[in-house]
Amino acid sequence: MIGVVCLNPALDVTHHVAAVDWAGVNRPSAVHARPGGKGLNVARTLHALGVDVLVLGLAGGATGAGVRTALAGLSVPAHWTRISGETRRTFTVVDRETGGAALFNEPGPRVGDGEFAELVVRYREVLDGCAAVVLSGSLPPGVPEDSYAGLISLAAAAGVPVVLDAHGAALRSGAAARPAIVKPNVAELAAIAGRPLGEAGGPAMAAAARELRAAGAGAVVVSLGPAGLHAVTAEGSWWARPPGPVAGNPTGAGDAVAAALAHGLVLGRPWDERLRHAVAAGTASAMAPAAGEFSLADYTGLLSAVTVGAG
Amino acid sequence: MIGVVCLNPALDVTHHVAAVDWAGVNRPSAVHARPGGKGLNVARTLHALGVDVLVLGLAGGATGAGVRTALAGLSVPAHWTRISGETRRTFTVVDRETGGAALFNEPGPRVGDGEFAELVVRYREVLDGCAAVVLSGSLPPGVPEDSYAGLISLAAAAGVPVVLDAHGAALRSGAAARPAIVKPNVAELAAIAGRPLGEAGGPAMAAAARELRAAGAGAVVVSLGPAGLHAVTAEGSWWARPPGPVAGNPTGAGDAVAAALAHGLVLGRPWDERLRHAVAAGTASAMAPAAGEFSLADYTGLLSAVTVGAG
Repeated sequence: MIGVVCLNPALDVTHHVAAVDWAGVNRPSAVHARPGGKGLNVARTLHALGVDVLVLGLAGGATGAGVRTALAGLSVPAHWTRISGETRRTFTVVDRETGGAALFNEPGPRVGDGEFAELVVRYREVLDGCAAVVLSGSLPPGVPEDSYAGLISLAAAAGVPVVLDAHGAALRSGAAARPAIVKPNVAELAAIAGRPLGEAGGPAMAAAARELRAAGAGAVVVSLGPAGLHAVTAEGSWWARPPGPVAGNPTGAGDAVAAALAHGLVLGRPWDERLRHAVAAGTASAMAPAAGEFSLADYTGLLSAVTVGAG
Repeated sequence: MIGVVCLNPALDVTHHVAAVDWAGVNRPSAVHARPGGKGLNVARTLHALGVDVLVLGLAGGATGAGVRTALAGLSVPAHWTRISGETRRTFTVVDRETGGAALFNEPGPRVGDGEFAELVVRYREVLDGCAAVVLSGSLPPGVPEDSYAGLISLAAAAGVPVVLDAHGAALRSGAAARPAIVKPNVAELAAIAGRPLGEAGGPAMAAAARELRAAGAGAVVVSLGPAGLHAVTAEGSWWARPPGPVAGNPTGAGDAVAAALAHGLVLGRPWDERLRHAVAAGTASAMAPAAGEFSLADYTGLLSAVTVGAG
């Protein structure tokens, strides 16, 4: 089982509108509401890959109930800790004519000390049954920025490897707690390094990835968007690139990568194969219209088309 | 007690954004979620006026639960009939810099025959305790377009007068069932008349209002937006005008008018006073930033400033 911690889930609401009137009244032709936020996207990807997954999340209010119900409807197992605040929504308006989209991300609810502590109790209870844990996404207000570090230390004490997808202080303190893998994108890596990193995949970027590994991460996998992944690990460095650009929705592609990295970790796949699967999953996710979803056929079809190399 | 039937309520979500990027990612500086839809706006206005009110509504899913919880938080009594569909949302983005707003109104959920029938059972049970009933707002899919007519007939059999705020077929069939008051706006009246009505308040409009009264409505009160109200009743015709244009949010002003008309009906106010209160409530609502809300001080302050005349 892979445990996925979701401290700041969301209900992702998408309105498709024939031709948006940005100054008037619109009647969406299609409305979708899906469980979202990075952690839940990871969990849904793992579930779609056939992995036994358990979500450990915080949810509150009617929107939290909507997230819980929607996730249960997808048959993704979850232990929810109820919070007094209201789980956030994201709204996406897609213009069917132009293909353009506007996103509106509500701030997360304030989480009380006792509420986070209750989730940690649950986390400790299930750790023994986890082959790996994924910590992914932003921390809602009220959750200390070193919380991921604490969860990584608890996992380490139980012998459970962690994949961390975070940014800023949560990534910095988390990396120091020795997770198996961290997966920043280039902007997140540059922010941690505190300097511009030049071209994606260039020597400055590789140096920053090595620094992050030296700071405690077992491996650093930098996501480069359509340019694929660059991994710096104890066994060496690798590149993995998708066959070409794809049309779709890049939101959630990084979450599919994190899920596939955790899956490969649990399966003991060698790094080159782990990265091949991660790029295929991320690319299949980018090809799908909705974050957190992808076609298994796209994923398996892409595996042989991904290019992987040392260096 | 005034009963308010809410067949198609909504959760009104508003995002205030500092400067909207209509092609990118936005982080709202303020998020509000309120119970909405015309019927709930009427009920909230009546409640704010100190009237004993009871909502009879259909609600389903997590969004329906959100509406129920939010209305209960406002201490507005309600009997809800649970439906299997998901209550709709409306989503408004307000640009704090330009003051402009974009609205996205989700379609209502499909309502099953048995679900509407269950609400009607509740409605019959409470009719005896009602001094008046307000029927307001659109009919969700699955609810027959003559449903308001049926509810008006049931109220008539119980001796309870009805205020109807609807449009199209629901207004046409509803008016024929002899409600005490119908409250179309000019566009709705023109649609029923099947012809353009010239200037708001002109002779063609007055003629169409008389026709709608002849079709069965006890009184026809036409809302003219910032120009006030024109009423055609058994006791004569009246005009009522606010003191001048106001800045604010006109959404929900018509619902405040419907609420005040029902209030005046129950109190037995003469028509000129009834219209004075209705214009004051509508104008106070337009002055408030959120639909379904107004300042009692604005309302009472406006009463003496409203101009009412026969004709």
